[in-house]
Amino acid sequence: MTAYTATVTVRLKHGVLDPEAETTKRALERLGFELEALRSADRFEVDLEADSADDARERADEMAERLLANPTIHDYDVEVAER
Amino acid sequence: MTAYTATVTVRLKHGVLDPEAETTKRALERLGFELEALRSADRFEVDLEADSADDARERADEMAERLLANPTIHDYDVEVAER
Repeated sequence: MTAYTATVTVRLKHGVLDPEAETTKRALERLGFELEALRSADRFEVDLEADSADDARERADEMAERLLANPTIHDYDVEVAER
Repeated sequence: MTAYTATVTVRLKHGVLDPEAETTKRALERLGFELEALRSADRFEVDLEADSADDARERADEMAERLLANPTIHDYDVEVAER
């Protein structure tokens, strides 16, 4: 078994309203920053032991499908690195 | 001016309690997943126009310092990519 960290990034799907990001963007603009768009996402770093990077990725993928992301409104991606 | 996306990842500092991550970890374990640790982080993807990647990074850095991160409890890092 090898120690891996799987990073799951969960984003709102294109077209889903993101009031938190909109508020953050306006607050930055009030501070004088110029920006065109801001998107927020959640990131989960999962430490796990697995036989291979593929195995770690598969398990992180299933965690995203079952709990971390809501497939109706979210897209996600998974990156795996040895720890 | 070139179009960049600056990605700011905001994490809790080591030692700061993260009840959301703890709850998520336990929920995954209840679903039968084996994992050693789970950390959550916020990710902001900021689209901006800048003269150079360094300029984009500097501005994103300042956004993190002034608004996106709370230096008392957060660490952050910034990645910049051309759009």
